Amino acid sequence: MNYLITVSYDGTRYHGYQVQNDKPTVQKALQDAVESLFGKRFPITGCSRTDSGVHARDFKATVITDETVSQIPPEGLPHALNTLLPEDISVRDAVLVSDDFHPRYDVRLKEYEYLILQSKTRNPFYENRAYLYPKKLDVPAMNEAAKHFVGRHDFSAFMASGSDITDCQRTVFGCSVTENNGLVSVKISGDGFLYNMVRIIAGTLISVSEGKIKPSEITDIIDSKDRQRAGFTAPAHGLYLNRVEY
Amino acid sequence: MNYLITVSYDGTRYHGYQVQNDKPTVQKALQDAVESLFGKRFPITGCSRTDSGVHARDFKATVITDETVSQIPPEGLPHALNTLLPEDISVRDAVLVSDDFHPRYDVRLKEYEYLILQSKTRNPFYENRAYLYPKKLDVPAMNEAAKHFVGRHDFSAFMASGSDITDCQRTVFGCSVTENNGLVSVKISGDGFLYNMVRIIAGTLISVSEGKIKPSEITDIIDSKDRQRAGFTAPAHGLYLNRVEY
Repeated sequence: MNYLITVSYDGTRYHGYQVQNDKPTVQKALQDAVESLFGKRFPITGCSRTDSGVHARDFKATVITDETVSQIPPEGLPHALNTLLPEDISVRDAVLVSDDFHPRYDVRLKEYEYLILQSKTRNPFYENRAYLYPKKLDVPAMNEAAKHFVGRHDFSAFMASGSDITDCQRTVFGCSVTENNGLVSVKISGDGFLYNMVRIIAGTLISVSEGKIKPSEITDIIDSKDRQRAGFTAPAHGLYLNRVEY
Repeated sequence: MNYLITVSYDGTRYHGYQVQNDKPTVQKALQDAVESLFGKRFPITGCSRTDSGVHARDFKATVITDETVSQIPPEGLPHALNTLLPEDISVRDAVLVSDDFHPRYDVRLKEYEYLILQSKTRNPFYENRAYLYPKKLDVPAMNEAAKHFVGRHDFSAFMASGSDITDCQRTVFGCSVTENNGLVSVKISGDGFLYNMVRIIAGTLISVSEGKIKPSEITDIIDSKDRQRAGFTAPAHGLYLNRVEY
């Protein structure tokens, strides 16, 4: 059976999604739960490799079992796995997909959200779940800048240095900034994202709010392909993988 | 100095607000932080005694210091205390009030919010922070029932049994139910609340959604003063003290 599962997780306690040695990761927790359930270890493939501290609301992964184990109907899988998973990871849904389905290569759209909490003091309900910013943000200026990211561009200027990816062309479908009750949300969707791209875009939009970068300069910065001209990399704990479409 | 502080806390790890023996409570954590800061133990009086697991966004408490310790300006107090408090408690604000100010007796309005997450599966972002309900709630029916709580009534039917309070008259200023993204919020404000009153009202509204109680029966249930006729006591972890006004 090839199950496509939807997973929500709070990334605070994890060294990212991807298995790495003995560190706690989301993939490792899922592999362990699947092994406990079926009595056998099966491959789990994720839609993306989220970094340490990054959260996901609708992460997608496939679990491929074989005929030597019991055939659990997909509608029973979330509950069965959740009883074996820690509180900060939850399987929300499971469906069967064809054998040639690939959760990473077949992605058509990914949406990320970056949360910034405007507050001078800590808020226990957003601890590790939003970037705390002590001043009022200029949301209209951020929004004006955000629209310049939309379209197909070489986003080298918005990629962490040291990455060995050669094709830096990506299409951003939408990018907008909203505010609700002191919480500023940057939402960005696209066909794929370079390493740290969303966090660098979030940091750049904060620089726009601070007047360090003008909204009209975004296109120039993209065209420069120069990482130095974009803003800082906003911290991981404000980032959520929100939605994945195939 | 008589400081009035505003405190947010996630009540999950605490045995309620009020100090009790050696159990971790919010008041105890505040007392310890104040003692570390001033080098002397001072009385802290809260606006209410929230139960184990209940959260607060804007809890109010007074901290009364004397002239033997350094006079910290109120605007410096939140940061000074937050460096000494655990992550799940945060002092959001501090102002000076007159010596005869009492954080409990002087309350004019309190608002509570009860959060119900409609979801068949756990959501890591609401773990211990909303009551998980596996079905769709009938929000219009809940809202129709909610308005019958408004006004001055004897709320004995909505008080936990075993309470020794004799005057059960309270005024509810407003009670309404809204829904956003699968999260149902019951907001209720009043001049004061009986023990477990908000949780029993939340449970009763869920019974209304389930068709066990009709919206039009609420007035009868209030008049009956019979706890047996109201709904169940919804669990503590969905409850937030939202706002306190003087």
